[in-house]
Amino acid sequence: MKSFFIINMMLLLSLFNCSNAQEFQSPNGDFTMRFSLENDGQPTYQLSYKNQEVVKPSHLGLELKDDKKSLLDGFTIVDTSTSTFDETWTPVWGEESQIRNHYNELAISLKQKETDRLMLIRFRLFDEGLGFRYEFPQQDNLVYFMIKEEKSQFAMTGDHTTFWIPGDYDTQEYDYTKSKLSEINEKFDDAVTGNASQEQFSKTGVQTALMMKTDSGLYINLHEAALINYSCMSLDLDEETMVFESHLTPDAQDNKAYMQAPCNSPWRTIMVSDDARDILASRMTLNLNEPCAIEDTSWIKPVKYIGVWWEMITGKSSWAYTDELPAVQLGFTDYSKVKPNDTHAANNTKVKRYIDFASEHGFDGVLVEGWNEGWEDWFGKSKDYVFDFVTPYPDFDVEEIHKYAKSKGVKMIMHHETSGSTRNYERHMDKAYKFMKDNGYDAVKSGYVGNIIPRGEHHYSQYIINHYQYAIEKAADYEVMVNAHEAVRPTGICRTYPNLIGNESARGTEFQAFGGSKPNHVTILPFTRLIGGPMDYTPGIFEMDISKLNPNNNSHVNSTLANQLALYVTMYSPLQMAADLPEHYEQFMDAFQFIKDVAIDWDKSIYLEAEPGDYLTIARKEKGASSWFIGNVNGTTPRTSNIKLDFLEKGKTYKATIYADAKDAHYKTNPQAYTIKTKNVTSKSKLSLWSAPGGGFAISLEEVK
Amino acid sequence: MKSFFIINMMLLLSLFNCSNAQEFQSPNGDFTMRFSLENDGQPTYQLSYKNQEVVKPSHLGLELKDDKKSLLDGFTIVDTSTSTFDETWTPVWGEESQIRNHYNELAISLKQKETDRLMLIRFRLFDEGLGFRYEFPQQDNLVYFMIKEEKSQFAMTGDHTTFWIPGDYDTQEYDYTKSKLSEINEKFDDAVTGNASQEQFSKTGVQTALMMKTDSGLYINLHEAALINYSCMSLDLDEETMVFESHLTPDAQDNKAYMQAPCNSPWRTIMVSDDARDILASRMTLNLNEPCAIEDTSWIKPVKYIGVWWEMITGKSSWAYTDELPAVQLGFTDYSKVKPNDTHAANNTKVKRYIDFASEHGFDGVLVEGWNEGWEDWFGKSKDYVFDFVTPYPDFDVEEIHKYAKSKGVKMIMHHETSGSTRNYERHMDKAYKFMKDNGYDAVKSGYVGNIIPRGEHHYSQYIINHYQYAIEKAADYEVMVNAHEAVRPTGICRTYPNLIGNESARGTEFQAFGGSKPNHVTILPFTRLIGGPMDYTPGIFEMDISKLNPNNNSHVNSTLANQLALYVTMYSPLQMAADLPEHYEQFMDAFQFIKDVAIDWDKSIYLEAEPGDYLTIARKEKGASSWFIGNVNGTTPRTSNIKLDFLEKGKTYKATIYADAKDAHYKTNPQAYTIKTKNVTSKSKLSLWSAPGGGFAISLEEVK
Repeated sequence: MKSFFIINMMLLLSLFNCSNAQEFQSPNGDFTMRFSLENDGQPTYQLSYKNQEVVKPSHLGLELKDDKKSLLDGFTIVDTSTSTFDETWTPVWGEESQIRNHYNELAISLKQKETDRLMLIRFRLFDEGLGFRYEFPQQDNLVYFMIKEEKSQFAMTGDHTTFWIPGDYDTQEYDYTKSKLSEINEKFDDAVTGNASQEQFSKTGVQTALMMKTDSGLYINLHEAALINYSCMSLDLDEETMVFESHLTPDAQDNKAYMQAPCNSPWRTIMVSDDARDILASRMTLNLNEPCAIEDTSWIKPVKYIGVWWEMITGKSSWAYTDELPAVQLGFTDYSKVKPNDTHAANNTKVKRYIDFASEHGFDGVLVEGWNEGWEDWFGKSKDYVFDFVTPYPDFDVEEIHKYAKSKGVKMIMHHETSGSTRNYERHMDKAYKFMKDNGYDAVKSGYVGNIIPRGEHHYSQYIINHYQYAIEKAADYEVMVNAHEAVRPTGICRTYPNLIGNESARGTEFQAFGGSKPNHVTILPFTRLIGGPMDYTPGIFEMDISKLNPNNNSHVNSTLANQLALYVTMYSPLQMAADLPEHYEQFMDAFQFIKDVAIDWDKSIYLEAEPGDYLTIARKEKGASSWFIGNVNGTTPRTSNIKLDFLEKGKTYKATIYADAKDAHYKTNPQAYTIKTKNVTSKSKLSLWSAPGGGFAISLEEVK
Repeated sequence: MKSFFIINMMLLLSLFNCSNAQEFQSPNGDFTMRFSLENDGQPTYQLSYKNQEVVKPSHLGLELKDDKKSLLDGFTIVDTSTSTFDETWTPVWGEESQIRNHYNELAISLKQKETDRLMLIRFRLFDEGLGFRYEFPQQDNLVYFMIKEEKSQFAMTGDHTTFWIPGDYDTQEYDYTKSKLSEINEKFDDAVTGNASQEQFSKTGVQTALMMKTDSGLYINLHEAALINYSCMSLDLDEETMVFESHLTPDAQDNKAYMQAPCNSPWRTIMVSDDARDILASRMTLNLNEPCAIEDTSWIKPVKYIGVWWEMITGKSSWAYTDELPAVQLGFTDYSKVKPNDTHAANNTKVKRYIDFASEHGFDGVLVEGWNEGWEDWFGKSKDYVFDFVTPYPDFDVEEIHKYAKSKGVKMIMHHETSGSTRNYERHMDKAYKFMKDNGYDAVKSGYVGNIIPRGEHHYSQYIINHYQYAIEKAADYEVMVNAHEAVRPTGICRTYPNLIGNESARGTEFQAFGGSKPNHVTILPFTRLIGGPMDYTPGIFEMDISKLNPNNNSHVNSTLANQLALYVTMYSPLQMAADLPEHYEQFMDAFQFIKDVAIDWDKSIYLEAEPGDYLTIARKEKGASSWFIGNVNGTTPRTSNIKLDFLEKGKTYKATIYADAKDAHYKTNPQAYTIKTKNVTSKSKLSLWSAPGGGFAISLEEVK
């Protein structure tokens, strides 16, 4: 009788548990996620990987503004449903030609008793991790609501090693700090270097994607996917508990998001692996976005380009046409009457020189910055009507340049610096895109340097996220490709809008001319910034001593030349710039050959070895061709890579051209020392290659027919 | 010797004074303005009228943000120049066919020693008063600057009687309070009635145009002209000193204005007269604006219209198409699948009925509100994408309506309610204006009900002033006329952009259905709201008991029927609505005849008698015709007007049709009691007419040939 009673109790208990707790696994069974309602109906999840807890029980919910009852507790589960999804899709461009989207899903419908409100949390477990988002179905008791703060927790199991940048409402252009979670606070102030537009919110606030490594060797990555019509998420750490909590970007009135049901939040993603390469190989962020929304994508093409840009970044030349005017008024200032300076780079002669160089060396495009009226007072003035995007300076003949480029088989790449004046950009956008199409431009680099107008909004607030999206979608209408700098860091939206071919939205190569970046910076970025989408990192600098371009600039590019070549493989982007001046390439044409040869669109990508902050070696197969390319970037410790070429097609022979650091190369003292060797290899071959501090190697493998 | 010494001293002193003080007069000598630098180089002006001081020495200047030295003192005069201007210009439409612009000008160039900055204050004295503005020439030491507050003072000479509404950053829709200056504070809270969007700043803050009357019977009016690319000015009273000081509208960060030299502030205007009619007759506000910027104005025409509107305002009908949905998402909500309510007024049948009525009775246009998708959740939700301005409800056939209207010789008038979502309006504006032209609409009533988006900005901040101007100028490109409701109150910009044919921007007729306005409201508005431009007051209500339209609405229109007729003369506007329902006019077709007959564009306007708050009688001659029209509106005290018709053309006989209050008429208890009499009159005739409380009379004078 007693056992019968006990069994009944156990059944009862399990029934009780089942009604409050749910569990499910990833397709390969490595992950288990457990959802439950804790305390007074507080949504809680917990994640295990290979039977180890990786996320302790963490609460979910949203704090509402001006509301008696937030969406934090008081819930009951009214429905659960599970499903599986397994589909392979073809990206327009990417690190591979096919992407598998395979997950198990658990959707939990919650009802808040006190308010009769419904909220659904959808969980998806991939073989590499978890994604979840909030959904608010159409319902009578929740229509319009304002989010005061999202309260999604990520409770870490220990004082992990972390690669982080300071949480900020306006910029991601910081060097990464590697530290324990417990050290973020003390290292925070040092991590905040200057920027044109910045605002931090907490001494323990950090941005995503956040890359961590546990003491037991697990890699954990936190980010978000599909950030559309919502506010950008940062993370704030509770140092006592090691719990991260979501922190959204406020608007001018300190409100975080305006919602109208039916609607969703973005996905919050947690990737875990005992192998760092899995983090890089994950396509979860793309997979959590909607499929391509553009019907005909034939006009979207990867671009390899050069540009009139680096000489202005280094201070050798100027964007501005004249130094005579303290300010300009577009439409009133008569540029034909001012005295031109002798530093304006975007002039017909120089641009044609770049076009010639591009044509000669097989580049698709030439970017020109400083081509248009307004650069004399574009920055730091909170100027509303700062550019019109269509009126060139007197020394830049749009039509003639276009003709010349066309005759040379080269496309011009447009530049739309907005100075953060978003309303002004939107007022001119149709005209600006049309001007592009009328004059043979297919792609535009846009910029948002400086504080945002409308004043009080931030680069990452919902209102401005909405603007970036508007610019992308309108561009698609005009068949224009967009490369948005200083915009919000990407979250996989390029799956839905593949005309978004790039963003900067991190500390790029330009900072090598602004004082330099840490030499291992590029071994971290693929684990952080690139999780959400490609980066227009603009590599390919061959002259590391910036004082050679501008005697007043003592900056140094903290990278060897071989490292710069490797970036074309390791820093994935369908849009790749050879950023240095043609005359620097002409000094090293043998090394430059790699940049000319390297592909920019891929059938396959294989992560040969990876340790965030230390090294990264990737091999990629050119799309629709037999060639392979390998790149290695190294941190501050000299190191040897031992790689097997077993990914090569069996039975084929490849001529490998190996661009590597010379034995005495060093990013600081001897960056331009490199060697070039060729040898034939097969799938049975192995290579042992040494990388200098801040160094690397690049290999092109061409099938010998 | 002593006298010689004294004379020399006096010469010296006068030289000294001349270098620091300047004086000049108005063309007719009535006004004298004295400018000086007081204390430590503080710009100061003082105004006299007919040898009486009307503005005591008042300081001028601007407080700058983030600046060590503001533009308040430390000035010296580096140049002065005087000039005279006398020109007559022809407005596209107006209260007269010709306007004389005649003033003396004194321009004072100031230099601030400490900063080497230049500021010019330009004064213009007209026969009716003073205008002045700040100008900032192009210069090296003042290029970009932020105004923290403008510090223009208007030092009143006594505790004047004032007609005021509470200073507010978002609305002017208040009833006027008549009180002493010293009583503003105690009466302030009562004056603040509810509104969709409002924010006051001071218990002694008031809006302009501000109308005052001194104890000695002088009328003083304060306003601004040419408010372009600046923040809207209110006035804040120092109760101790009776000094008004300018108070600008802040943006989301509490900054007032962003300036780039060369630039100007708007004009600040001070009108004074011992005759109230001079205030109404003044064209100073228009004259201080730039001449017409539109080359071909042939498409700009006054409009007399009716509209599907009052029945929604009273609550009898709805703007919304359905009551089934708590919210809609444009482009996703399928209106063809929802259940229409039975209160949606903007349907084909009803609109055609209005078109028929308009055609039958000679009206130019029919306004229809609620024609487009989105009205179900348009208000109070801070909804960003609230309307698209081009998608009609299922029961409003744009093409068919247009065809029908065209066949009847009637124009449809467009409605663009923005819900304050300005970025959304700008995103759709080109399409929306083009849609208008494609479908035969020439004029649009726009609205800004509710708080402004971008959130944190105000209806009257610089950033949003800029938006209204953008809408007007873009409309001109499309040959579209604009009537902007809830926008900033006008400041004479219709001289430069005569396609701005109206604004509401004050408490209009709709408030008679929201609880009623004071019966003398319309005897004040011409002295305040109308100083800067015409008002789309939408008069012509014949049924005063709103419960007859909507049993749930007990509001009462505080006006007699005769007063409603008079408004077509006294409330100048090139855009005049007969706002009531056709069926109400059909009950009083004899009275309605006046509305049909009254002109809407004028050769001449004569202000026969006027006392703000009490009564107003105006006679106007129809443009290009011999007819005259007279209107009287009365306050709360019954009164007889004795008017001479000596303005009529000598030797002509006119048939006068006199619509007047019946002997027992009263705005509250017997509003619809009126009489209609006809008699022949000449320029020698006199009329003695009685007006009820809240009453009036209207007279049409048609030449007997």
